[in-house]
Amino acid sequence: MPTVLYGAAYYQEYMPSDRLDKDIELMKQSGLTVVRLGESTWTSWEPKEGQFEFAWMDRILDALHKAGIKVIMGTPTYSIPPWLHAKHPEIMAVHLDGSTSTYGIRQNMDISHPAYRFYCERVIRQIMAHYKDHPSIIGYQVDNETSYYQSAGPVVQKGFVDYLKKKFGSTQELNKVWGLVYWGQLVQGWDELPARDGILNPGYKVEFERFQRTRVTDFLDWQARIVNEYKRPGQFVTQDFSGGVHTDIDQWAIARSLDIASTNPYYSVQDELDFQTATLTDDVARSVKDANFLVTETNAQTIGWDSKGQFPPYDGQLRMNVYGHLADGANMVEYWHWHSLHYGQETYWKGVLSHDLQPNRIFKEFSQVGHELQKIGPKLVNLKKTQDVAILFSADSYHGIRYMPFSDKHDYMSLLQQLHKTLYRLNVGVDIITPETKDLQRYKVIVVPPLYVASDTVLNRLAEYAKNGGHLLLTFKSGFTDEYDTVRPVMAPGPLREAAGFHYQEFSSLKQTLALKGDPFKAGEQNQVSTWIEMIELDTAKALAYYDHPFFSRYPAITRNEFGRGSVTFEGTVLSDELQMRVVDTVLKQAGLDGPDRQLPAAIHVKHGTGNSGHAMHYYFNYSGSPQSFAYPYSGAVDLLTGKPVAKAQSVTLPAWDVIIAEER
Amino acid sequence: MPTVLYGAAYYQEYMPSDRLDKDIELMKQSGLTVVRLGESTWTSWEPKEGQFEFAWMDRILDALHKAGIKVIMGTPTYSIPPWLHAKHPEIMAVHLDGSTSTYGIRQNMDISHPAYRFYCERVIRQIMAHYKDHPSIIGYQVDNETSYYQSAGPVVQKGFVDYLKKKFGSTQELNKVWGLVYWGQLVQGWDELPARDGILNPGYKVEFERFQRTRVTDFLDWQARIVNEYKRPGQFVTQDFSGGVHTDIDQWAIARSLDIASTNPYYSVQDELDFQTATLTDDVARSVKDANFLVTETNAQTIGWDSKGQFPPYDGQLRMNVYGHLADGANMVEYWHWHSLHYGQETYWKGVLSHDLQPNRIFKEFSQVGHELQKIGPKLVNLKKTQDVAILFSADSYHGIRYMPFSDKHDYMSLLQQLHKTLYRLNVGVDIITPETKDLQRYKVIVVPPLYVASDTVLNRLAEYAKNGGHLLLTFKSGFTDEYDTVRPVMAPGPLREAAGFHYQEFSSLKQTLALKGDPFKAGEQNQVSTWIEMIELDTAKALAYYDHPFFSRYPAITRNEFGRGSVTFEGTVLSDELQMRVVDTVLKQAGLDGPDRQLPAAIHVKHGTGNSGHAMHYYFNYSGSPQSFAYPYSGAVDLLTGKPVAKAQSVTLPAWDVIIAEER
Amino acid sequence: MPTVLYGAAYYQEYMPSDRLDKDIELMKQSGLTVVRLGESTWTSWEPKEGQFEFAWMDRILDALHKAGIKVIMGTPTYSIPPWLHAKHPEIMAVHLDGSTSTYGIRQNMDISHPAYRFYCERVIRQIMAHYKDHPSIIGYQVDNETSYYQSAGPVVQKGFVDYLKKKFGSTQELNKVWGLVYWGQLVQGWDELPARDGILNPGYKVEFERFQRTRVTDFLDWQARIVNEYKRPGQFVTQDFSGGVHTDIDQWAIARSLDIASTNPYYSVQDELDFQTATLTDDVARSVKDANFLVTETNAQTIGWDSKGQFPPYDGQLRMNVYGHLADGANMVEYWHWHSLHYGQETYWKGVLSHDLQPNRIFKEFSQVGHELQKIGPKLVNLKKTQDVAILFSADSYHGIRYMPFSDKHDYMSLLQQLHKTLYRLNVGVDIITPETKDLQRYKVIVVPPLYVASDTVLNRLAEYAKNGGHLLLTFKSGFTDEYDTVRPVMAPGPLREAAGFHYQEFSSLKQTLALKGDPFKAGEQNQVSTWIEMIELDTAKALAYYDHPFFSRYPAITRNEFGRGSVTFEGTVLSDELQMRVVDTVLKQAGLDGPDRQLPAAIHVKHGTGNSGHAMHYYFNYSGSPQSFAYPYSGAVDLLTGKPVAKAQSVTLPAWDVIIAEER
Repeated sequence: MPTVLYGAAYYQEYMPSDRLDKDIELMKQSGLTVVRLGESTWTSWEPKEGQFEFAWMDRILDALHKAGIKVIMGTPTYSIPPWLHAKHPEIMAVHLDGSTSTYGIRQNMDISHPAYRFYCERVIRQIMAHYKDHPSIIGYQVDNETSYYQSAGPVVQKGFVDYLKKKFGSTQELNKVWGLVYWGQLVQGWDELPARDGILNPGYKVEFERFQRTRVTDFLDWQARIVNEYKRPGQFVTQDFSGGVHTDIDQWAIARSLDIASTNPYYSVQDELDFQTATLTDDVARSVKDANFLVTETNAQTIGWDSKGQFPPYDGQLRMNVYGHLADGANMVEYWHWHSLHYGQETYWKGVLSHDLQPNRIFKEFSQVGHELQKIGPKLVNLKKTQDVAILFSADSYHGIRYMPFSDKHDYMSLLQQLHKTLYRLNVGVDIITPETKDLQRYKVIVVPPLYVASDTVLNRLAEYAKNGGHLLLTFKSGFTDEYDTVRPVMAPGPLREAAGFHYQEFSSLKQTLALKGDPFKAGEQNQVSTWIEMIELDTAKALAYYDHPFFSRYPAITRNEFGRGSVTFEGTVLSDELQMRVVDTVLKQAGLDGPDRQLPAAIHVKHGTGNSGHAMHYYFNYSGSPQSFAYPYSGAVDLLTGKPVAKAQSVTLPAWDVIIAEER
Repeated sequence: MPTVLYGAAYYQEYMPSDRLDKDIELMKQSGLTVVRLGESTWTSWEPKEGQFEFAWMDRILDALHKAGIKVIMGTPTYSIPPWLHAKHPEIMAVHLDGSTSTYGIRQNMDISHPAYRFYCERVIRQIMAHYKDHPSIIGYQVDNETSYYQSAGPVVQKGFVDYLKKKFGSTQELNKVWGLVYWGQLVQGWDELPARDGILNPGYKVEFERFQRTRVTDFLDWQARIVNEYKRPGQFVTQDFSGGVHTDIDQWAIARSLDIASTNPYYSVQDELDFQTATLTDDVARSVKDANFLVTETNAQTIGWDSKGQFPPYDGQLRMNVYGHLADGANMVEYWHWHSLHYGQETYWKGVLSHDLQPNRIFKEFSQVGHELQKIGPKLVNLKKTQDVAILFSADSYHGIRYMPFSDKHDYMSLLQQLHKTLYRLNVGVDIITPETKDLQRYKVIVVPPLYVASDTVLNRLAEYAKNGGHLLLTFKSGFTDEYDTVRPVMAPGPLREAAGFHYQEFSSLKQTLALKGDPFKAGEQNQVSTWIEMIELDTAKALAYYDHPFFSRYPAITRNEFGRGSVTFEGTVLSDELQMRVVDTVLKQAGLDGPDRQLPAAIHVKHGTGNSGHAMHYYFNYSGSPQSFAYPYSGAVDLLTGKPVAKAQSVTLPAWDVIIAEER
Repeated sequence: MPTVLYGAAYYQEYMPSDRLDKDIELMKQSGLTVVRLGESTWTSWEPKEGQFEFAWMDRILDALHKAGIKVIMGTPTYSIPPWLHAKHPEIMAVHLDGSTSTYGIRQNMDISHPAYRFYCERVIRQIMAHYKDHPSIIGYQVDNETSYYQSAGPVVQKGFVDYLKKKFGSTQELNKVWGLVYWGQLVQGWDELPARDGILNPGYKVEFERFQRTRVTDFLDWQARIVNEYKRPGQFVTQDFSGGVHTDIDQWAIARSLDIASTNPYYSVQDELDFQTATLTDDVARSVKDANFLVTETNAQTIGWDSKGQFPPYDGQLRMNVYGHLADGANMVEYWHWHSLHYGQETYWKGVLSHDLQPNRIFKEFSQVGHELQKIGPKLVNLKKTQDVAILFSADSYHGIRYMPFSDKHDYMSLLQQLHKTLYRLNVGVDIITPETKDLQRYKVIVVPPLYVASDTVLNRLAEYAKNGGHLLLTFKSGFTDEYDTVRPVMAPGPLREAAGFHYQEFSSLKQTLALKGDPFKAGEQNQVSTWIEMIELDTAKALAYYDHPFFSRYPAITRNEFGRGSVTFEGTVLSDELQMRVVDTVLKQAGLDGPDRQLPAAIHVKHGTGNSGHAMHYYFNYSGSPQSFAYPYSGAVDLLTGKPVAKAQSVTLPAWDVIIAEER
């Protein structure tokens, strides 16, 4: 892309009266360069079954084109028309509790249902045929924040049986891998297989989740293939993932069907703005294709499906967040949305304009950014990011632990979040990888939240990684079950035992927090572990810490094993945030990762990359309401926003909620 | 009415053995003058379908008549017989979640269902025909605490479509007012209209609530018309509303079908007795017909559908509460009920007698009041109340906010309650008015809880009221949406903008409480606002207070606009109780409302009116467990309870939980 | 029995690979003498309908027999095969909310359903016929922890009507005892009787619970009779109750069909180990047949259906718990289970061996006990227990109060638990008796949790008990309703009034705690009562305590009436634990129960009995992590575990989590 795109989703059709000209005038005035259209209004495209309308959209596209504004066109399939529901109620999602989705909310149908697919395909082909030559369109979005919508009724169950037949061949094999002999539930033939609704068997449940993820991949791949039949060279196909790390869809698999990945990060602003969860969302979006990505939606004024959590950004926050996404590798930032709505569930999910539809405080800041990007967008686009550290994400482990939780407070995701937050706090950028990732050696450190469900192959690959010089941080419960969520009948942590240098036969929950004996990491008041203890017995590893407790003191809490040319650090318990930071810090230092980014004030965060012109870029952000100073440690640069030079070792003061972009020269 | 009525609901048929003579002896002994009969026992009237029994009731009526006790007879339709459920299960309420009411509880049927109506009509006509000439009967109660019982299944949905056709004409109009274009849900014809069960659209939901209220009005009007065919001149028809302000029924509309309104206030006693919620209930009952009303049920010993909240009144409390209701304009106080029940869900909802059915502490106090009323009842009856202040209640706004709540802690009702409590604490009596109320100018001050849903007509009428000299206290969210719950596409507060003298484009939730800068109302520790901020920009109004906050300090928290001959005070945020009291106080003073009632000790409350003989009456109550003294500020009077004179400026000491009734002479 | 049995449930069929020989080797090595087999794996017995497999079990039985290990064989009926569910979905439990049990969990069928019974009977007869002559089998377990599984659908409802017809004869009688006249719900004939699902009537609900209990009794009696047709002389039939006191089954009635009762106590260990709830479970198991019992399942390593509450015992705890059960009268202790499972819902309900299936810390302690019992088992078996105190348990009262609760915090069970805990703390052993228990006079003291539902006969029997010299401790709500849960229409506490020496007409809930005036029991900070007050008026009783409160001070809180040759102490309110202990202490002293067991350190508990050789036995346990000393007060004895003599008055020091067994000589 030649420059950064900046814009909003635009729904002229939602407005109480025609404002197309007024809107385009405001857009031009603000520096907006792109809008997303069409993905939300199936009944505007097809008000009655088989009757298609295009004039309303032609007029919008033509006007945008005239104004030089680019368009991303969406397929309108995530929210079905009333006539479709009335005619084909059988396409609605049937949930595990037997209830059927009612009409009213979007995203409530069975995405595998052939009747739904039939109407989807027709409306997509109609739109594509009509607009394939329109010059304003740069790309297509297929569907919107797709999931499987808790659809799990009899039709889905039949699909699951087909999936099982293909994967396992016979119910004999299922009896074995899931241990159906337990409670006398051996199955003799597929017609006896009980439905998911009452199932307690963890292996069955984890496999069912895997199947559900494939349904979403299949649906989006199918849409992308239809769109690909029509799209012009140079146009792209994308899908907009909702924010965070998803366990209900396989973002990596879906991304293989897309030309570029998109994401919709929404996050807390005002006093809570620190951009960590936004960064995690961006890290995923960048990692799924190992490439630049688009932000298709993000906070404009306020968000929420009611008016309980209305938090408009403070002055400066909207602007700094744009640069936050660009620093993560985004090539576009688009708000949801241009207007605010006067009816419907998202009345309080406000756009750039308020309900009064006139310029306001936010529009002013939006315009400031629009004009800045007109100038510096070409330098910011296509940022190259190379990370030394990766976090390994396992959706299977999330579900495996979800079905056998170790805590009401902590779970797989809270551990993953803690580790990401720790690295963010240390100003260490990360990629997100999965158990399928083969090329591990490109990372100096791999951090592994509880890898509860994993095949021998995956565990052996991690062990190999360490042996070859990688530094592995493993957490409790890793290695406990195989890929079928079945506990290994050997000493834990199974295939990781040699690399980790210990074994255990027992574990215990903890009702209270415990201290580590002698505060080995100098964490002071936060010298605290909790929730879970693996009763580790050392083979070759060294203990980094022991528990302060009459009984548990004999078991190490944290261990490290020098293994081959690398190392394996293991946390056998849940660490406080401070303790986690100090342990991660030692692992980074093991890997030779240290430096000036670690000396910044807590409110200052820095992100790096190589700019479009090949220069190193350093983005500095002040996530606080007061000015913050620091010494700039890199080669001489220019702040692209102000045009001022920044010299090595120069003291830089960032105002409240502000940013500089230092491009080395 | 010639005197105050005093009595209880009476269910001789509920007793384990015949006690009619014993009960009537105790009633006579106590001074009881009225009982309510018959409304709860359909199967005693009609044990088998079409077989009617009257002998059991004839005997009771004759004995009561002989004893000179008056009777209110109820239609027994709120609890259906087992045979009716067995024969017509289709009349049971079907809820939004698809579940059907089971048999066991009362008030679980679809009150619009023709099959239910058929059996209702027959039993009502049978009873009316049989008893229309009985001399003991002074009036009839139709049904009991009627609502629509969450009935919202397919039959109700059909009724809703008919209602919509009449009101809106076409689905094109619905597409427009509800904005069904959002999420592509445009409807082409009534057969496509989705059912209420899955609906998220706020406008649809608010209209559905309106429709449900009309169903209750229609049902009670229909019953009243049947009874009117039989009743003698001088007899009345009433319905007993349950306590509080109702959002599921339209009490004003229903009252138009009644000769007199009744109400069933139940409230906390023991240490929590302050009679505020009871007063609110009474204020509604008096306001719906702008006339005296009846208390058909209230606490005798204890209340509750289990034994978790059994709180018998302390000595004196039962007695003072009778005079509390009379001071609000009641012409009758009837307990629920005479006996206590030995079985059924209300075993612990105890009557005047305990389960042992012998005189007890409560019976003694009941008798004391009975004998007092024999003497002074004729002076207390028909109290005339004229209020300077009104609270505007909007059921639509309640629902509009409920479907887009701004808080888990505060809602429309909590604001209305806070405002009533504030005025009660200031000893200012109020009427309750509605958006339909035309004659606003009779009030000096109108207090408006968040008027979120309102037509231009209503808002313009309020602006006009201020212009003509009224003093309006408006609260946040007022004026935000129109009568269809659709946000106005203009600067807020829409049609109120000129009268209020400001506008806003943005608002914010608050996670923490904030102080008002400089504590302008001297509220000390309670100088606190919370939850919600409208980011007000002044046009002509003056700011009475600003926020103490780095960002929000630029926005006024409370404003006042002198407008025409009156004023508009606006609260853009949620105030602490103390702050609310101080702000209301300034509004009252704007309107010239001040005086000695504001100097009373906190535990003393006073209520006023003009007595049956044309004299001014002042009721003073001590809502505390210790004696309280105050200077009596009005013209010389006599305490009707003791016969002692009370001179102007005399110091009066009220014992714990006691009352005086000063009638000016 | 000649000696104590020690073992585990054993599921070789659950293992990922064959380990029969390895397991038996480990069993022999550890001293294990018994295993339970077969009750959990219907599909191993009958993989397809009507096709039975025995070879897998023959092999296990033969190997065990060869190793001299005894077997308890279970009928496999508590968990149904997939083929049975697929063929007969109509046997699944239908719940009160109309939902049907799904397949996956065990114990989810209607145990009265004839189709289920047909398949049960066939598989039981097949197993019995095949194994009736196998020499290793010492007894049979019918089903497992049986309940009625919330099955309450139409089929159960029909059974209930039959039950009612038999018990009450006509609906006229029901109308009367349940007071169906209330809310006009009189029933004219059985076809009109409403189903349980919507019922609010407390009498109906309590009777329905009684009916449900009879269904379980009937089912187990039916199974026992089938097994009895086959079993050899000397073999026993048992059922394993889950822990605690059950309100959903009638353990006393069921026990009449069994040769010996079994129980499955599971309880907290680590820092929370005090063995009180385990003792209560044992007390019930011993009381139901007034005989020794078996522990069929108990904690090995950790328990839980997830990994949130994994608490392996500290060193010594597993061992001391074995002797704890023996001291309560157990003749067997069997763990659930030998292995740990690698799949299924109970993956974290760990057995003696961990998932690695190799000897571990717990196996070591298991083996220590196994070898101790080889030596001293013959002396410990068949312990005779004679208790001076009984707690009267009323399932009806539990349900009566459940349907009209007096608190969210306290209920029938919390009171029963408090009383048991109090007596346990005082080292007073108890039997558990029921309202049906006739021979009350064998106890010196009977302690009665709120006996809310009880017939005149039962209440008169208790009064008679006191008159004849017994000492009765009664608690509030006792005597309030009759056997139909109908409140008595007389002064409370009804038939208990003369014995208790007081009456009351009123009661009150309490929002705050109150003190007793003058702290009459010297409870200091715990001089606190709460929740409920019966407003007692004394007849002949004396007040032991009054409330400290302006209003309630006129009512006694605790009373005592000397009655005949005994006494009745009454608690009209909820006492703090400390207060309860001091009140119970005075009642024990009334009965002459005092002595050296009351002087022990808090962590030391003692239990007594007469050993198999006729000598008095005293078990002392140290439930703490530090050594505890006490003076041994009984005749000279030998500690069976160490063989060391223990002299009268000798100071004994017990190490942390340890036990001595003093056999008098």
